[in-house]
Amino acid sequence: MMMIVRNIPIFAIIMIGAIMFSPYKSIAQEQKAEATWIWYPGDYEIWLSNKMQARRTERGAFLPPLWRYYSPYALVTFKKDFELDEPDEITIATEGDFKLQLDGKLIHGRSKTLQVPSGKHSIVIKVYNQEAVPALYIQGNRLVTDHTWEVTFEDKEWIDETGKASDQSGTNWETVGSWNFDNAEEKPSLFKLETTPQYATSVKDAGKGQLIDFGKETFGYIRFHGLKGTGNISLYYGESEQEALDAEFCETLDELTFDGSQASEVTLENSMAFRYVQIQADQSIEYDSVSMLYEYLPVTYHGKFKSSDELLNEIWDVSAYTMHLNTREFFLDGIKRDRWIWSGDAYQSYLMNYYLFFDNESVKRTLLALRGKEPVASHLNTIMDYSLYWFIGIYDYYLFSGDEDFIKNFYPRMVSLMDFCLDRRNESGMMEGLPGDWIFIDWADGLSKEGEVSFEQLLLARSLEAMALSAEIAGDQEGKEKYQILADALRDKLFEVFWSEEKKALMHQRVDGEVLDTITRYANMFAIFFDYFSDEQKNAVKEHVLLNEEIQKITTPYMRFYELEALCAMGEQAFVLEEIRDYWGGMLDLGATSFWEKYDPQESGEEHLEMYGRPYGKSLCHAWGASPIYLFGKYYLGVKPTSPGYENYVIEPHLAGLEWMEGEVPTPFGNISLSISMAEIKVHSAGGQGTLTIKSKTKPISNTAEVVAMGEDVYELKITPETKHQITYTSFQ
Amino acid sequence: MMMIVRNIPIFAIIMIGAIMFSPYKSIAQEQKAEATWIWYPGDYEIWLSNKMQARRTERGAFLPPLWRYYSPYALVTFKKDFELDEPDEITIATEGDFKLQLDGKLIHGRSKTLQVPSGKHSIVIKVYNQEAVPALYIQGNRLVTDHTWEVTFEDKEWIDETGKASDQSGTNWETVGSWNFDNAEEKPSLFKLETTPQYATSVKDAGKGQLIDFGKETFGYIRFHGLKGTGNISLYYGESEQEALDAEFCETLDELTFDGSQASEVTLENSMAFRYVQIQADQSIEYDSVSMLYEYLPVTYHGKFKSSDELLNEIWDVSAYTMHLNTREFFLDGIKRDRWIWSGDAYQSYLMNYYLFFDNESVKRTLLALRGKEPVASHLNTIMDYSLYWFIGIYDYYLFSGDEDFIKNFYPRMVSLMDFCLDRRNESGMMEGLPGDWIFIDWADGLSKEGEVSFEQLLLARSLEAMALSAEIAGDQEGKEKYQILADALRDKLFEVFWSEEKKALMHQRVDGEVLDTITRYANMFAIFFDYFSDEQKNAVKEHVLLNEEIQKITTPYMRFYELEALCAMGEQAFVLEEIRDYWGGMLDLGATSFWEKYDPQESGEEHLEMYGRPYGKSLCHAWGASPIYLFGKYYLGVKPTSPGYENYVIEPHLAGLEWMEGEVPTPFGNISLSISMAEIKVHSAGGQGTLTIKSKTKPISNTAEVVAMGEDVYELKITPETKHQITYTSFQ
Repeated sequence: MMMIVRNIPIFAIIMIGAIMFSPYKSIAQEQKAEATWIWYPGDYEIWLSNKMQARRTERGAFLPPLWRYYSPYALVTFKKDFELDEPDEITIATEGDFKLQLDGKLIHGRSKTLQVPSGKHSIVIKVYNQEAVPALYIQGNRLVTDHTWEVTFEDKEWIDETGKASDQSGTNWETVGSWNFDNAEEKPSLFKLETTPQYATSVKDAGKGQLIDFGKETFGYIRFHGLKGTGNISLYYGESEQEALDAEFCETLDELTFDGSQASEVTLENSMAFRYVQIQADQSIEYDSVSMLYEYLPVTYHGKFKSSDELLNEIWDVSAYTMHLNTREFFLDGIKRDRWIWSGDAYQSYLMNYYLFFDNESVKRTLLALRGKEPVASHLNTIMDYSLYWFIGIYDYYLFSGDEDFIKNFYPRMVSLMDFCLDRRNESGMMEGLPGDWIFIDWADGLSKEGEVSFEQLLLARSLEAMALSAEIAGDQEGKEKYQILADALRDKLFEVFWSEEKKALMHQRVDGEVLDTITRYANMFAIFFDYFSDEQKNAVKEHVLLNEEIQKITTPYMRFYELEALCAMGEQAFVLEEIRDYWGGMLDLGATSFWEKYDPQESGEEHLEMYGRPYGKSLCHAWGASPIYLFGKYYLGVKPTSPGYENYVIEPHLAGLEWMEGEVPTPFGNISLSISMAEIKVHSAGGQGTLTIKSKTKPISNTAEVVAMGEDVYELKITPETKHQITYTSFQ
Repeated sequence: MMMIVRNIPIFAIIMIGAIMFSPYKSIAQEQKAEATWIWYPGDYEIWLSNKMQARRTERGAFLPPLWRYYSPYALVTFKKDFELDEPDEITIATEGDFKLQLDGKLIHGRSKTLQVPSGKHSIVIKVYNQEAVPALYIQGNRLVTDHTWEVTFEDKEWIDETGKASDQSGTNWETVGSWNFDNAEEKPSLFKLETTPQYATSVKDAGKGQLIDFGKETFGYIRFHGLKGTGNISLYYGESEQEALDAEFCETLDELTFDGSQASEVTLENSMAFRYVQIQADQSIEYDSVSMLYEYLPVTYHGKFKSSDELLNEIWDVSAYTMHLNTREFFLDGIKRDRWIWSGDAYQSYLMNYYLFFDNESVKRTLLALRGKEPVASHLNTIMDYSLYWFIGIYDYYLFSGDEDFIKNFYPRMVSLMDFCLDRRNESGMMEGLPGDWIFIDWADGLSKEGEVSFEQLLLARSLEAMALSAEIAGDQEGKEKYQILADALRDKLFEVFWSEEKKALMHQRVDGEVLDTITRYANMFAIFFDYFSDEQKNAVKEHVLLNEEIQKITTPYMRFYELEALCAMGEQAFVLEEIRDYWGGMLDLGATSFWEKYDPQESGEEHLEMYGRPYGKSLCHAWGASPIYLFGKYYLGVKPTSPGYENYVIEPHLAGLEWMEGEVPTPFGNISLSISMAEIKVHSAGGQGTLTIKSKTKPISNTAEVVAMGEDVYELKITPETKHQITYTSFQ
């Protein structure tokens, strides 16, 4: 049985948009030797993220990020050595002025076409652009710009008195960056997200103006139709009705002035996040109606989930929508307020993305924007934990995508960030907060970040493991050994210092050489799914920490993500499902159309909207609120890769009390489709070697593969690609 | 006696230009608490130099520098703590979007004015601009943007869950950069050099078109008057008539197409260096006449020189004009071809500038543009010697200007460049060429740059002395000691390895542990004016190297600069004057209106125009050709500072056979005016304590100060400021 195609209007619109207007190519198309715009790796991502993150406003004030901005190189040199069987005519498009050398000879003039005779050649093109990113697009019958080109920001090409070029320039050539700008006219600097019209679901008079409701959380540009007259219009945006109606305290607003010369159709310049907008217009100005242009990244919903529980289905759908709203030029934290890229938030988006869009480009863009370039002078987003999530994000990206090129190309930037981290260790080899380091961990009342925090050491240990793995891929054998030794030593130290045999927990921190008598959930839950505990420790931690009501509770969806993951990793799917119903269901009960930055069931009324001491400070559409996507895919449908790029993977379904569930999990080969009931599992996979684990009271019967008993009531069978597997069994435990 | 004002048309035009149009302020005006545009230090210089250096073309092709471009920060934060006696209203102008916080509180909206109540305040303004340099201008009655503000590219200002800002951010605040943009409308990104019209001195038919002669080397934009019709016009520029007439090989050209819609007055977009231009127009297009807009930096000719020898006067005048043509947004190497900033060339411009414009801003701009920012990945201009000249340039800048602020503000960039250099030493503690290092020294046939070159070690030693001095000014006592020890050790090593007691010379190089049997002039002449030799060594080197015809001769004005300086430092002014008459006089005999990149009296005809294997490759207006300005001021008028900023200085005049000379030497206090004949010296100084040394057969008679005998025929007297000193004596030796 294959998935039923659900009919959710907004998704349908997006998918049509993607087909009709999108520059995105299918993998099959990408593999053709077509030309694409190329640039210095990471520079476009830096430039675009600088622009995007400067779009935050607070009550009309411009509010850029609090961390440093990196800059693209203004002058770069591209090159390629190639051989032609027959002559080629190439056309050259650049963003910026360019200098072209063919076989070491400068081509005079500024012609955009060039005849290249057959034979071996070397082409070198310098591009200068100080306003946007220097970029190059060459289209010939044979020669095209693609990922095989190299680039440098310093070609060190000098000449002697006779005009002869140096033959030992020491230039460091790197592989170019590119995305999906595959036409000469499609200049990278012109990139904009897609848009499609959306209309109000209700309009009513309110206070001094009108309150327009778009029916659900959305993002885009307000449009006026039939606008005439002169005067001012004020717009007060709200993720909640209360916020839109509160002209004095709403977080975002627009103040417009019209002199009568405007067109009758006006689309605002600023995109905003809102469900409601209150419009106050002078009497001297009129309009017929208000709509909006919804703005989005055209991505495909590869991942799917549906079950016998309609509440869970709604939670999955709203999670997917929340995730999509925050998946834009880059993975955002939230769409109303920050509109920034936070490494900790993005890390969760990467994971959710693997079970929804499987859009590697969004992961890579975000990793590159976060990392910036040299020199490293502070942690990513200034936060220590956020530097470390970046490494772990690459570790995971490799596991899910199998993309070795990304690691090979950016390994030097991994090394320099890790050097920065290692340089900040204390004499015990641990990282603690130095001036300029923000230790975040979580938003939690009274959470101490002083001294050596076990959670940070845990992230560092995993980051060092990511470095060892990446060093090997990048061919740095010495680095691999160095990082592995450091990782092992830190793991040992972590347990030596923080593990309490009495408390059955990793303690929270050590200050001035004394381990304090505090336990938090953070290090303990990460150590579970990092597999740092023995089975005995795991079970003890589950009882003494995870399920212990006396340990401070987690209130942010951000850390709920990991808490629930840890519980799932311990087989507590049934318990977690109840938690999901309560927590995410609780938000839906309060009318949420996207999931929030924080939810506390103890609060009531407008308390739910408040945060950071501001009445509407809380984001009601926050990426980290979408974690059910990840949990359902990985721990209920139960699909996860066990070797890079899903070459090998496992399926360990957990109905956890549901009658049935069905869904799809994307992989680099295509989707794995699953349909699971109390009596039957159907599986179809597009590639990779899978192992399905089934818990059954009796030996399951398969139409394809051999079923192997693995222990009491546990069976395995191999899932081969392009095969319709159908297994019947006796209902799960 | 004061200087006669000479009447040289081009200079007169410039000085009028400076008075009428220039934004440049007198020192007195600068000292007033007026508002000025501010930015992150060095970033404007980087941005402007990126633009300027990308204006080189070669036969219509774009030709940017071969070294790396740095980028400004796109997001910076300015701040100032201040106290107001009474309320102030400030107006805010920025280049880019801005965020304003007063006393920690975000000001909503985007108002360009703000009421600030009396009392203590802290103002913090973030500015974002990815196209140009983020810059800020605030004008209030009390609060203004000026050099007292601070700035950072990373303010690390984070908040906790309650919205409370961190109190240990570790932000590194630096002193802002500024220049002379003192009005809100005068935005730094709009900066352009001044222009003034110039007209042809002759027009004649030539080949397929017209040859226009502007009478002398010039720089600017060709203008067509009375242009009509449709079709193409080709312009072939020439520093020589031959070049302009050679459409096939001239170095620069313009190809224009007109569709008939053009205005009758058309000024070209590209500025070019030329004396001649050949114009070939289609028959379908007509124009009445051609003129040009001369483009220049408005600077004042503070330094002056005139003598009884008209040839020398012309050499000084043409040198000053050559220097002015190359003193633009930054100190250029040459105006026709490179239009780039080369550290070695610029180093000489700094020195010449101290005896002509005394324009500290041009020195600082050039030093900052050359240095760029972190991380250092290669030598300045990729050339090892050019990194080292940068340090020595700062050493000299401090001596002449006394500007400690510059060193304090940029000491960290000195340290990081020196770290780069020190990291590249070999196991003997010497620098030799590694892959990526260009060892330049000089354009000279067969000059070997292999192994350890004594000249490079000499520059490194001096650079280390500059670091020790700068460390002390910057308050880095540990650094001072470290650099002094390194400098002393390297000087010892230099003599231990390279000094040949047999040859009475520093040998040229050591390769694979063997000192080769080669002597060049470079290290030997620098060691003279660096005062690294004993008197005995100096005299021996003069005989065995400097005046030894068998040692390879120097043919570039670049190294002639130092050779003649070394001879002057040895008292060989009379000999050098003959050399100047021959060498620079030789160029004038060939019709030079500005001095050349290279001159070889042995060549003839068009050989003089050729270089780098190209018939017109040679620059006929090259900054390093202007060295007589420096030599006449420092070694004939004989004025040089002996403590920073001319607090103390010496005057050691050398008539060297001239009947008389008179001139002015600028200092931070104003000019030192001198009139010197065989019988009398008149001196007037605006500040500092001077010591005049006179060689006389009898004891000189002074109208002011006591004359003290210092040895046989040598007398000294003190020059006090604002005093008309007049000394009579018996003619010089």
